[in-house]
Amino acid sequence: MTRGRFIALEGGEGVGKSTQVRALAAALRTRGLDVVETREPGGSEGAEAIRRLLLEGPADRWTGGAEALLFAAARADHVAKTILPALEAGKWVITDRFLDSSLAYQGGADGVSIERLKLLHEVGSAGLLPDRTLLLTLPAEEAARRAEARDRGDSDRIGGRDAGYHARVADSFAALAKAEPARFRLVDAQGEAEQVTARLIAALAGL
Amino acid sequence: MTRGRFIALEGGEGVGKSTQVRALAAALRTRGLDVVETREPGGSEGAEAIRRLLLEGPADRWTGGAEALLFAAARADHVAKTILPALEAGKWVITDRFLDSSLAYQGGADGVSIERLKLLHEVGSAGLLPDRTLLLTLPAEEAARRAEARDRGDSDRIGGRDAGYHARVADSFAALAKAEPARFRLVDAQGEAEQVTARLIAALAGL
Repeated sequence: MTRGRFIALEGGEGVGKSTQVRALAAALRTRGLDVVETREPGGSEGAEAIRRLLLEGPADRWTGGAEALLFAAARADHVAKTILPALEAGKWVITDRFLDSSLAYQGGADGVSIERLKLLHEVGSAGLLPDRTLLLTLPAEEAARRAEARDRGDSDRIGGRDAGYHARVADSFAALAKAEPARFRLVDAQGEAEQVTARLIAALAGL
Repeated sequence: MTRGRFIALEGGEGVGKSTQVRALAAALRTRGLDVVETREPGGSEGAEAIRRLLLEGPADRWTGGAEALLFAAARADHVAKTILPALEAGKWVITDRFLDSSLAYQGGADGVSIERLKLLHEVGSAGLLPDRTLLLTLPAEEAARRAEARDRGDSDRIGGRDAGYHARVADSFAALAKAEPARFRLVDAQGEAEQVTARLIAALAGL
């Protein structure tokens, strides 16, 4: 049994990750692949329970350190119960967010060191990285417009933070991608959903 | 305002920690001290929510790494929301378990490295240590007898593990105490509760 491939979609609020996870999975299935769609925080029973602790309640419910530990715990469960079993069964796994979201949000924007966050990932998940990480990007003004449109609705503890916070997150994602060009591909999230999906598929070349 | 003192009671299942936390707190209050009694995992609203995730469900609910991260997250919340505010208000804090329980259970008995567990504590709680850690000790056969008596009742995911596991925990606690003699005091948990309380008070000399 050939091990499957592990793909993460990353990016800030409102770039269209969850729509594109579904579209990309559907496109890969038409090519005969067995695909598991998942998301973080969550993606397994234990991780979904931790997700509720992370996303509900007041903005200051957790300290930065507690939040980083909870994300790492949720990811550890997601990896052990969902991602690794699927990969070992030869399936492709597409996740809406993974480690780089912790690095960009808790590391870049909240100020927990990247080195420490990577160590938490080592403790929880033996440092597992995606085979490819697709970073959906938008110009700052377009990202702000989309985030604002979402904010009228049901933003959670983290999505509801201010525009400066989200700009720092975007900068952090860009820096992470630059540091690991072999794993990352930047994908323009502007335009029709179908166009974006076609770009994502092109960005999987080589897998 | 003089900062309060932070005291942890440690030891395996059935050594009488929760009874002795109450008795020690009562004894210190008769001396005019303002005392907060607390426990781990838990001791704050967020940490109690994490406690339920840790102690409920099947024995294999979490991997060792996920469990270590959850304990560290709960401790981070406990420290930030309960312990530090009380100490800064001049109160004495007595906790039923703290970091050394993670080191003895997840480290000594489950095999997560002590170095990594201490790093999780650094990330979550800036490495806070008790001013004094009182380790309640029992001869192995007495500890096994008490654990067995409890087992007929409502053991949780961790308390319900086998005798070999609890023996490794006891060995780990002994090694931790030996490595930090300035912080630890060993206290014999045999005999009447009042005698044990008197020994605990004597072991606070110097604070």
